[in-house]
Amino acid sequence: MPKTVVARRAQQRLADAIRMLAVDAVEQAGSGHPGMPMGMADIATVLWREFLKHSPTDPAWPDRDRFVLSNGHGSMLLYALLFLSGYALSLDDLRNFRRLSSPAAGHPEYDVEGIETTTGPLGQGLANAVGMALAERNLAAEFNRPRFPMVDHFTYVFLGDGCMMEGISHEVCSFAGAQQLGKLICFFDDNGVSIDGEVRGWCVDDTAGRFAAYGWHVIDKIDGHDDAAIRDAIGQARQDARPSLLMCQTIIGYGAQAKAGKAAAHGSPLGTTEVAEVRKNLDWPHPPFEIPPSIRRAWDCKDKGSRLAQTWRACLTDYSKNHPHLAAELKRRLSGTLPAQFAAKATTFMRQACREDAKLATRVASQKTLDAYAAELPELLGGSADLTESNLTRHAGSKTIAPSAKEGGNYVYYGVRELGMSAIMTGIALHGGYIPYGGTFLVFADYARSALRLAALMKQRIIFVYSHDSIGLGEDGPTHQPVEHLTMLRATPNLNVWRPADLAETAVAWFAALKTEGPSALVLSRQGVPTHRHAPAQLNEIAKGGYVLIAGGDDPQAIVIATGSEVPIARTAVEQHNAEHPPHRQVRLVAMPCAEVFAAQSNAYRQLVLPPGITRRLVVEAGSSMAWYGYHPAPEQMAVCMNTFGASAPAADLFEHYGFTAAQIRTRLQKLLDLK
Amino acid sequence: MPKTVVARRAQQRLADAIRMLAVDAVEQAGSGHPGMPMGMADIATVLWREFLKHSPTDPAWPDRDRFVLSNGHGSMLLYALLFLSGYALSLDDLRNFRRLSSPAAGHPEYDVEGIETTTGPLGQGLANAVGMALAERNLAAEFNRPRFPMVDHFTYVFLGDGCMMEGISHEVCSFAGAQQLGKLICFFDDNGVSIDGEVRGWCVDDTAGRFAAYGWHVIDKIDGHDDAAIRDAIGQARQDARPSLLMCQTIIGYGAQAKAGKAAAHGSPLGTTEVAEVRKNLDWPHPPFEIPPSIRRAWDCKDKGSRLAQTWRACLTDYSKNHPHLAAELKRRLSGTLPAQFAAKATTFMRQACREDAKLATRVASQKTLDAYAAELPELLGGSADLTESNLTRHAGSKTIAPSAKEGGNYVYYGVRELGMSAIMTGIALHGGYIPYGGTFLVFADYARSALRLAALMKQRIIFVYSHDSIGLGEDGPTHQPVEHLTMLRATPNLNVWRPADLAETAVAWFAALKTEGPSALVLSRQGVPTHRHAPAQLNEIAKGGYVLIAGGDDPQAIVIATGSEVPIARTAVEQHNAEHPPHRQVRLVAMPCAEVFAAQSNAYRQLVLPPGITRRLVVEAGSSMAWYGYHPAPEQMAVCMNTFGASAPAADLFEHYGFTAAQIRTRLQKLLDLK
Repeated sequence: MPKTVVARRAQQRLADAIRMLAVDAVEQAGSGHPGMPMGMADIATVLWREFLKHSPTDPAWPDRDRFVLSNGHGSMLLYALLFLSGYALSLDDLRNFRRLSSPAAGHPEYDVEGIETTTGPLGQGLANAVGMALAERNLAAEFNRPRFPMVDHFTYVFLGDGCMMEGISHEVCSFAGAQQLGKLICFFDDNGVSIDGEVRGWCVDDTAGRFAAYGWHVIDKIDGHDDAAIRDAIGQARQDARPSLLMCQTIIGYGAQAKAGKAAAHGSPLGTTEVAEVRKNLDWPHPPFEIPPSIRRAWDCKDKGSRLAQTWRACLTDYSKNHPHLAAELKRRLSGTLPAQFAAKATTFMRQACREDAKLATRVASQKTLDAYAAELPELLGGSADLTESNLTRHAGSKTIAPSAKEGGNYVYYGVRELGMSAIMTGIALHGGYIPYGGTFLVFADYARSALRLAALMKQRIIFVYSHDSIGLGEDGPTHQPVEHLTMLRATPNLNVWRPADLAETAVAWFAALKTEGPSALVLSRQGVPTHRHAPAQLNEIAKGGYVLIAGGDDPQAIVIATGSEVPIARTAVEQHNAEHPPHRQVRLVAMPCAEVFAAQSNAYRQLVLPPGITRRLVVEAGSSMAWYGYHPAPEQMAVCMNTFGASAPAADLFEHYGFTAAQIRTRLQKLLDLK
Repeated sequence: MPKTVVARRAQQRLADAIRMLAVDAVEQAGSGHPGMPMGMADIATVLWREFLKHSPTDPAWPDRDRFVLSNGHGSMLLYALLFLSGYALSLDDLRNFRRLSSPAAGHPEYDVEGIETTTGPLGQGLANAVGMALAERNLAAEFNRPRFPMVDHFTYVFLGDGCMMEGISHEVCSFAGAQQLGKLICFFDDNGVSIDGEVRGWCVDDTAGRFAAYGWHVIDKIDGHDDAAIRDAIGQARQDARPSLLMCQTIIGYGAQAKAGKAAAHGSPLGTTEVAEVRKNLDWPHPPFEIPPSIRRAWDCKDKGSRLAQTWRACLTDYSKNHPHLAAELKRRLSGTLPAQFAAKATTFMRQACREDAKLATRVASQKTLDAYAAELPELLGGSADLTESNLTRHAGSKTIAPSAKEGGNYVYYGVRELGMSAIMTGIALHGGYIPYGGTFLVFADYARSALRLAALMKQRIIFVYSHDSIGLGEDGPTHQPVEHLTMLRATPNLNVWRPADLAETAVAWFAALKTEGPSALVLSRQGVPTHRHAPAQLNEIAKGGYVLIAGGDDPQAIVIATGSEVPIARTAVEQHNAEHPPHRQVRLVAMPCAEVFAAQSNAYRQLVLPPGITRRLVVEAGSSMAWYGYHPAPEQMAVCMNTFGASAPAADLFEHYGFTAAQIRTRLQKLLDLK
């Protein structure tokens, strides 16, 4: 293919507008990634102008096609598309690419109109898109009726070599193949170049063969700069019942001279000389950030988009007349509002839970809660990464989502794919219509870290169910025993980490997670835990994240803080202590199921629970002490925690071995009380 | 295949010994995974008795074949093999399977003789094996000479459906294909069942096609219970120049009655009734943990193994005569000892580094250090996950390891595979002969978490080079800006986390990492950082992890603690403060490049640096404050840290926006000093 291009056709000029905006914005910012937008501009032009169903003036229109830029470093491609199509993103925003407070951030960020998901960490957008396509198909199965295709859109993805090399691409594309997500259409920017150079030195995958092995529809060797070939491929992909991979051969930095086809075009400004070459090669005489009116008109799709959205809204009105209950439910589901009656029914269950006094693993408590709540919540879309019977994520009303299922369902067997599951759940939440939850062992949150972080960054309502939460899982040993994981979760901004101690706390945790804007992690024990009977009035306090379980008189000498399965152990220790000591030498017990929610309470409430004057404090939690130091003035004295890896043995032996018995805690407590 | 098996052949009885040990040990422990050992026993019997080059009485013999149980939950398979072959693992150990202090832990643990790597989290063992095979090939290229094949062994892996579904399998198998690691031979336990049931509900991969797409040699549809078929396949695999995947069709729980072929056989004791059925089906009349002498004799390979090892050692003696320097170097490399002259040469560089005063990104400081140290360290085996020019992991003497390279090298282009790279590095370290280091952005430690944890659990000497370590990376925005990652790393047991501030600290950090038994993370800035000139005597203090940079007089009023790129900002603030205040109102500045190493110092030293009486302390670090609370009695006052996600903008704007300027720090410091 020629590097020097003259006599550009009208179609090419539309793509060149993207190229020049990307080149000039990166140049102006002094950093960024021009190569990918230059390479994928032709594909984007065909897709966005001729196929993509969207409305710049109604960007949240529920039945729009979803477009995901999984190779998010090429953000200027997306910004150029949004600007040219007529979204709110302005030319000034592009001029301020990568400056503080510009919506045109270094990588696409979800809170900007027209951006479906935050991308950058490679492979994640692709995974989100799989979730969107799954949500679309399932929501369609639930809500579409003859003549009323209320949910009927495609999910398109751009992705590059990096996305393809990341392990997450295997997990989610294998999953998409098994689920036969036919309305997922992916464009692989097959330019043969990654940051370190030509990929053949470290990747010789026959990617077409790989995706065929996943059960995908693959079109190989599409000329990514030939609009007719692109158009034809998209047409085929939309007809195929399998997910489609369009392998588009492109030139990274297309239009540049010395850097075209080279890694040098990938991740930094081209430089003045090369930018001038691009202008010459593309026969583009206009100064930076100036787009000729004819090209702007040809790109602008506000009217067309608006008509599409209005047609859908008219259909919705008609649907509301013919299927009033279904329409009301669809609107509720898309709005993310919980059912009106849910809070009352949940409260009934929580009140019952207060009376529970049987020994119960909190993962079992979680299942009981799910059984109670899920009946009221058709939006719950559950699953597990091949640990259903361990995480206890299926409830009485669970129905498996089968591949290509026409009737839909509410439970997904994700397979052994913790990272894929987490990013797919994020895609489901982003799509709307569902509250996804999914289970694995807490230790395998490690596999899912990158997706969990993006879910937190985007504040998506997702419930991560993490069972087997400490050395309490016993014999599976240190590879399966989380130690640092609670700290890792608590250090993540925007994430609520609940570690309930019994059925009442678990019921409150689920209720809070369902109402929270943002992700929650529910951290649950494998082993049975003695249950505390609560007064129903305590439900409000539990919901505050931390509360007094044993007051310890009017002027307690010390405070023990515990979470989850360590609460009953600490309770025994405190009860024994208090029974043996006079009123002025009592100790308080505080349960802290969610430190983030507790931290968000008023100063007054927090000081009521943890009076500042009581500086003797002992935290009991079978996890790293790091997250707790902030609760104590003498950290080295304060923690009965786990700061080493565990071992393989029955849980009771481990709790004894690592110091988590009531007797050992009493010894530590006494040392603390004896401090001067 | 019949579930009921009668008239067992002698070969089958050898496998049945494994089956019964697994069944009975799981039964006795009350937990564990009998299904996989029962399914893979026939494969293991052929491999271990007829092909595996190993010596039970000389388990660390360097040129042994490596055997990795990637589906580590089937640990009893490995323990049975070790016991039957004649390793130190005893019958009593098997009886104590999964009890505290038994070497027969829930999942295989590296510190037991004959266990090459700790496995359990799926896919990780496979990845370690890829690293072992890479190390073998490269070490052979370096050290083998005509008639002296000192390094010449296979790496064998058992893996299951879970390993195959995990994304890490894609990363490392694609990599192994690109690298043409022909001596890697993998046995896929293709039993069609995972924990949630028959995998076809969530995985319909054509795995043979997938691995062919990676460039592997694949043998499909091997009857995993037919020793002749297994034998034939192994023979073929050993001849092929590509990595081999042997797809062995097996029955999970082979020998059981009701549970054979079902998920029910996977992860819990079979139960008394089913165990009795197994005994009947396998015609095995012996009580638990009793192996007939004829079977023990047939299994015992102590003599055979010892002869093999002795042959190798004799060859080594001969090699030492013919190639004395090479032999001495091979011995040194395998022992893990650094070259005798290295410490002196490194010290010379560190002393020079003390005089450096140019502004320098610490990633550049890292490259300068590498350039200086690597010339002395042929065992350094570097690489990057497609960010070589960003992480600056190539040094002047770097030579790329090309696919199937006969001459070897010391630099690996891992591709966009952070998790794969990390687990491969662990495999390289486990193999011996190399100190692996590899780079990516700190934020992408997220992808690698699971491998990082296992490296820490096994205390392997690996150097994780993490550049772009804070909002200081600027415009790439919050998806790329680490916030919680330092906390995540510091919460991980056995991991030293170095965040140096300048060239001298970076040089010390590398030196420490090279000498440490266990992994180290080097956390480095993208942006330039003003350099502090050190007195050479300070090198010893830097090596202690934390030291006084500005004393603040005899009786400082407060201590500022800073790390990395925030040290010079804090220094400016402290210097300005001290210049404006009289001697009795001075402030101390402590640099803390490695909190773990500092915590390991004597009480006396730590109190010298951080006198307990000085309770006014302010930490300055552009990361989550959680890890630092332990350094302060009033945590809410103590931290200029990042507890939210960042944003996309130039670094200087971000540091200003989030409070990291000298002026803002002075304000915070003043507030602290004004506290009563």
